[in-house]
Amino acid sequence: MNWLNIVSVDETQRPSEHLYIQIVRSIKDAIASGKLSIDSRLPTNRELASLLNIDRSTVSRAYLALREEGLIESHVGRGTYVKSVTGRNSENLAINRDSDTGNAHRQMVWAEKFSRASQTVNSIVSRQAPASGMRDHTISFGGGIPTEEFYPSAHFQRIVSEMVAAKNVDRMFAYSPAEGDDELRDQVISYLAQQGMPVQHDELLIVSGSQQGIDLVSTALIDDNDAVIVEDPSYFWAICNFKARHARLIGVPVDEHGMRVDILESVLKRQKAKLIYVMPTFQNPTGATMSQERRQQLLALAREHQVPILEDNFVGELVYEGEKRRPLRAEPGAEDIVIHQGTFSKALCPGLRLGWLVAPQEVMARLRAAKRSSDLTTNSMAQVVLARYLKEGLYKDHLEHVREAYKKRLDALTSALVEYVSPITFTSEGLNKGPQGLSWSVPSGGLFLWARLPERLSARELLTYAEREGVTFSPGELFFVGADQPEYLRLCFIQTDEKTIREGVKRLSRALAEFFGDVSRARSRDSVRSKRGSEGVLI
Amino acid sequence: MNWLNIVSVDETQRPSEHLYIQIVRSIKDAIASGKLSIDSRLPTNRELASLLNIDRSTVSRAYLALREEGLIESHVGRGTYVKSVTGRNSENLAINRDSDTGNAHRQMVWAEKFSRASQTVNSIVSRQAPASGMRDHTISFGGGIPTEEFYPSAHFQRIVSEMVAAKNVDRMFAYSPAEGDDELRDQVISYLAQQGMPVQHDELLIVSGSQQGIDLVSTALIDDNDAVIVEDPSYFWAICNFKARHARLIGVPVDEHGMRVDILESVLKRQKAKLIYVMPTFQNPTGATMSQERRQQLLALAREHQVPILEDNFVGELVYEGEKRRPLRAEPGAEDIVIHQGTFSKALCPGLRLGWLVAPQEVMARLRAAKRSSDLTTNSMAQVVLARYLKEGLYKDHLEHVREAYKKRLDALTSALVEYVSPITFTSEGLNKGPQGLSWSVPSGGLFLWARLPERLSARELLTYAEREGVTFSPGELFFVGADQPEYLRLCFIQTDEKTIREGVKRLSRALAEFFGDVSRARSRDSVRSKRGSEGVLI
Repeated sequence: MNWLNIVSVDETQRPSEHLYIQIVRSIKDAIASGKLSIDSRLPTNRELASLLNIDRSTVSRAYLALREEGLIESHVGRGTYVKSVTGRNSENLAINRDSDTGNAHRQMVWAEKFSRASQTVNSIVSRQAPASGMRDHTISFGGGIPTEEFYPSAHFQRIVSEMVAAKNVDRMFAYSPAEGDDELRDQVISYLAQQGMPVQHDELLIVSGSQQGIDLVSTALIDDNDAVIVEDPSYFWAICNFKARHARLIGVPVDEHGMRVDILESVLKRQKAKLIYVMPTFQNPTGATMSQERRQQLLALAREHQVPILEDNFVGELVYEGEKRRPLRAEPGAEDIVIHQGTFSKALCPGLRLGWLVAPQEVMARLRAAKRSSDLTTNSMAQVVLARYLKEGLYKDHLEHVREAYKKRLDALTSALVEYVSPITFTSEGLNKGPQGLSWSVPSGGLFLWARLPERLSARELLTYAEREGVTFSPGELFFVGADQPEYLRLCFIQTDEKTIREGVKRLSRALAEFFGDVSRARSRDSVRSKRGSEGVLI
Repeated sequence: MNWLNIVSVDETQRPSEHLYIQIVRSIKDAIASGKLSIDSRLPTNRELASLLNIDRSTVSRAYLALREEGLIESHVGRGTYVKSVTGRNSENLAINRDSDTGNAHRQMVWAEKFSRASQTVNSIVSRQAPASGMRDHTISFGGGIPTEEFYPSAHFQRIVSEMVAAKNVDRMFAYSPAEGDDELRDQVISYLAQQGMPVQHDELLIVSGSQQGIDLVSTALIDDNDAVIVEDPSYFWAICNFKARHARLIGVPVDEHGMRVDILESVLKRQKAKLIYVMPTFQNPTGATMSQERRQQLLALAREHQVPILEDNFVGELVYEGEKRRPLRAEPGAEDIVIHQGTFSKALCPGLRLGWLVAPQEVMARLRAAKRSSDLTTNSMAQVVLARYLKEGLYKDHLEHVREAYKKRLDALTSALVEYVSPITFTSEGLNKGPQGLSWSVPSGGLFLWARLPERLSARELLTYAEREGVTFSPGELFFVGADQPEYLRLCFIQTDEKTIREGVKRLSRALAEFFGDVSRARSRDSVRSKRGSEGVLI
């Protein structure tokens, strides 16, 4: 049977979501038209994936959907077959016998129900699927999650006990106001004032973590097809959220001084944008911090072109070298143009899901309304306990403590990289280049070190080698919105102690040596083949 | 000065949001063109509102925006004036002197930046603004919030202490999985199984309260202009959320047996819908419970027309009379067509912000992705503590306890209504009708009693009288999506003890007597005037 006549997919219709629906439809049509009869054997996942040159997971999902609709069945060891169904025309192909009631009824065909936003989010989230090759003792430089040893457990327990003893707990269980618990708001306001950022009560909103902050700003500002400018690369889940609003994302490159404002200027001259999303301090994923000069230029450009800025100050506190940078929102003249957001997830602990937004009053009214429409209000228990924690001045001590600890971890990472990874080089004869290896820039704060492979090598491929060695990281390609840049990897250095970090880097160096060796050999073969007149393929 | 030549609004451009922007633009244009010179006095709010026949709050917002842009200034007691500005053409009308830097710069004109979704949400939320006439000791039948006396404070404190003592708290501060804390998920699954609703692990998602459940279902399913069918009247914040997605809302009336499925059928025959949102048990706001027959019809119609159902089972537990109803999702054959949601906010306490969604696996994958894009994951602390609380079997006892308490409160409300309100009647000579009063139906569970004034009387107007007497309720007009039905009011009876409820009803009876008296007198005058040949106006 020529399956290419039966199952057709349109290459222009990526993302993969669409491919899977196309496969489902093709097979349904083939059953309906009689091209595929009952008990016909379908190709295996592997066969069909290779035939159509698509991912095996796409075929799996298509088969799963068909199985759920009762159109095919799989038998372990025997394969997948077209099942007997009660009808044969395309109208009642989805008719099926319900085992509970014994009544024939139409199964819901969900694949056709999902929104455009859902298609987008789903295809983005599936890119971030967990690696399959993870071993039990894998050392993780992936993600960006503070470690448990610094969680404020003991203080929080004591605070809860004291509040219960003082019969002062109703606030923990009642709805908090939509804008947040009053005491927590007071505390956040005085915390921001200490950073040189005076904020009025009606300019502040407590949110369920930074991600909700981004979500609310999206709701308030972004319409279909609006242009949103982001640093390129940028934060994965911000990109996801903006795309789910059907925004057009425009990436502006980042160098060691942050967003390239010269390129931003030319973008703004060409087109009207709705929002500039920026992480000025210890950017995710590059770790870069925007220079003072560029901050001024950014504000001036935003004002000139009347484009609001969303400043995501997710790790502004975690400075390991040099002076602490004040937030962009604290610059003179930024108040009416910058929406600022901060979070307790990175410097304190992520499970509280608490962060804040600061915006001009008229914008805040919109954000508050969006908050109510989204989830009414933030969980009270965490807010009330955190407010007391802040009031007791404990956060300041905590920050000192983690800054010191994380600085040591960054130092451990960089010294181990120099020791174990620098000697591993890649010689690319085919490209007539000298030996190169992994290069990186050392951030002065935050969570991430951004590293780069020699040109056109893929960090995603390196990841396979790394996981085999028991170490993992985030491939940089996840974070780009413009052209594919496969060479980058992001290493989060706050998640384990120094000893584990050194061991992780050792493993990474072994993975690099193997990877470089395999690529070199493949290129040599290609080079030989190329000299013989066949077409060279670069990995 | 003829202000109608200067400030023009287009009546077809409602909602009021647009009116306010129109006023801002008109005045800016008038300043730019020189029609309005520096130091010209603007009309007062009241004058302009009456001239344009619009709401005073709309004028206030326009003036506020103009003030924030530095174009006008107000002096207490003297009025509002056009301010001196640096430029005079429409291009730089927004140029203004920045007091911080001394540099001339363009102020951000936010009014033009907000999304369509934000315009919608903002105008809906502003309808729900808190009443201005609230006194300190007002007794509230408004809202729908469980009282603090039943919050599980003591148990929660003990659980936190025990967990800290056992050094078992990291889960409280770390990210929980996107789908929710594992232990809480286990507990919710066994709780649902007890309700005759077996659910697989990958069919369940923990959410930050029901409202987030609605928000995620909207993200997953609703595109611009999709038809969403709701009971009419329905839950205020669900209406708000669907409208923010630019859905077309179609209301299907509710009677004492729930949604009118006969009308639903004719709607579904006429048009393709994307979702049916329904509260089958103790509906908000009517308190009605859908009959078993209608539930079956609803499921059959949804299946026939391939329209998913979102079942909001927000108070299914709170039954005061008769058997507990199992959720719609527990009916045979509902599994693949019903998305079910429940919450701990009403029967336990609202501040935890914890609820759940149940959906078929392929839908759940979409909801989980939407959750991550929205706020990554739910707060861990509340989840971990609640899981333990459920595991100890305490929720069952709690439910017994509140059922008993709330039943007494409902009884207090209905007996007080019979005693104090029934005797208050309204005689409408103008309409040739006999004496009538407030009528109501007694629910068999939930939070709300739904009451109705005689035809064409406005509960919103009654509210003014009620607040003067020190009692408040929710005017029913907030909950309708179809034609205006001003006669209804919703009374929440779980918020105060029986004694307070009786006192609240006494106050309501006084308010009704005054209101009926005033309306009767006004109608008599109109009737007299009408007999004289002038046009009669009904209040």
